[in-house]
Amino acid sequence: MTDPAGSVQVLAFDIFGTTVDWRTGVAEQVAEIAAERGVALDGGALADAWRERNLPSMARVRTGERPWTVLDTLHRESLDELLELFGVADGFDEPSRRRLVRTWHRLPAWEDAAEGLRRLRRRYTVVALSNGGFALLVRLIRAAGLDFDAVLSAENARTYKPDPRVYRMAAELLDVAPGEVLMVAAHRWDLDGARSAGLRTAFVERPAEKGPQGVADRAADTVSDVTVTSFVDLAEVLVA
Amino acid sequence: MTDPAGSVQVLAFDIFGTTVDWRTGVAEQVAEIAAERGVALDGGALADAWRERNLPSMARVRTGERPWTVLDTLHRESLDELLELFGVADGFDEPSRRRLVRTWHRLPAWEDAAEGLRRLRRRYTVVALSNGGFALLVRLIRAAGLDFDAVLSAENARTYKPDPRVYRMAAELLDVAPGEVLMVAAHRWDLDGARSAGLRTAFVERPAEKGPQGVADRAADTVSDVTVTSFVDLAEVLVA
Repeated sequence: MTDPAGSVQVLAFDIFGTTVDWRTGVAEQVAEIAAERGVALDGGALADAWRERNLPSMARVRTGERPWTVLDTLHRESLDELLELFGVADGFDEPSRRRLVRTWHRLPAWEDAAEGLRRLRRRYTVVALSNGGFALLVRLIRAAGLDFDAVLSAENARTYKPDPRVYRMAAELLDVAPGEVLMVAAHRWDLDGARSAGLRTAFVERPAEKGPQGVADRAADTVSDVTVTSFVDLAEVLVA
Repeated sequence: MTDPAGSVQVLAFDIFGTTVDWRTGVAEQVAEIAAERGVALDGGALADAWRERNLPSMARVRTGERPWTVLDTLHRESLDELLELFGVADGFDEPSRRRLVRTWHRLPAWEDAAEGLRRLRRRYTVVALSNGGFALLVRLIRAAGLDFDAVLSAENARTYKPDPRVYRMAAELLDVAPGEVLMVAAHRWDLDGARSAGLRTAFVERPAEKGPQGVADRAADTVSDVTVTSFVDLAEVLVA
């Protein structure tokens, strides 16, 4: 956009894939827990299959097919199914399954994230806006050493992105118009949802997000107001 | 308490009076706006009378006498009444009244606050938990240069402290038991509410909170788990 700052006052960051590298984090922790239990399990393969189940399971909440259910619970349900599918259900008892679900609470930030957020906060109110539960997000952001002005979760709206109500809840709670919020994400579906709720959009290309075999969304797939390859790049464009 | 850290995982900080000096901030900004408009008005006197009206106006929401109403709106209603009472209603038009309400969005932190919070965050999840609206709190905390792990507002529970639901909402959103949260405040009524919701309590003595004529709550008035005179003092006790 010609005036990328425009009337934007708030930057809302997606977290999984956009701010933190979920695949590396989950794959490594899963491999570690599996090794401890003497189970042969490809951490990356489980991470990919697990993440793949998120959108359909969140859609059932979003469409009202089931009542509000926090992401940890959806993760646990998918995990139980996947451990069966992978033929390793006997290898993981209750406490180890709880540990597996908690791998999503501790993930490494992309290396540009902390510095980019720090620079963007000089000019903008910078918040997290993710489908992760509120407690998960607060833990994750603390552990990753990131600083936001506020954390907002789909849990605050009791439905999941890309439901427009989640994006509008963020604007309402921050007392700004939807068009004064720039949604920053690495996923086309998230930016499409934000745009349909009246927000502006910034696409961050994270080609490694889905691992060596996965296919991440690329800049050419989107029609966002801004397209960048890192948060530092976004700071260059917006704060310069 | 002998083991002040105990099972506490989250520190929840009250904001007005506990973390920021509302009286100095409001009094100075009111005096400035009044001077600009050529109106003779004692900023400190208006600040005191304004703050005095908060508890009764919030009580009407808390008891269900009126539906959820955010603090900015309660502030505006009290302001309109007080400008009449002070005989200066003609001196303040609509835009200047909006500016007066926004004085509560920009207040100086007590000088120990930033350093104390920084040290406490090394060990604990540190959140704001205030009757201010969510947007007000995010702006105020940003402007005061403070860093919390998350901001929680009475607005998230749609009722006001000392309603136990506000304190329990904080524990639920952070996925901890009420007894794992330590409420930190300079006001006895707030700590009494927290205690009745099952939280632990820390009293911070802020003798200057209500200005030279006002009477602030003192340590002897409370039965809290911890009593300190600053956030740095609290960090010495809890993080040491």
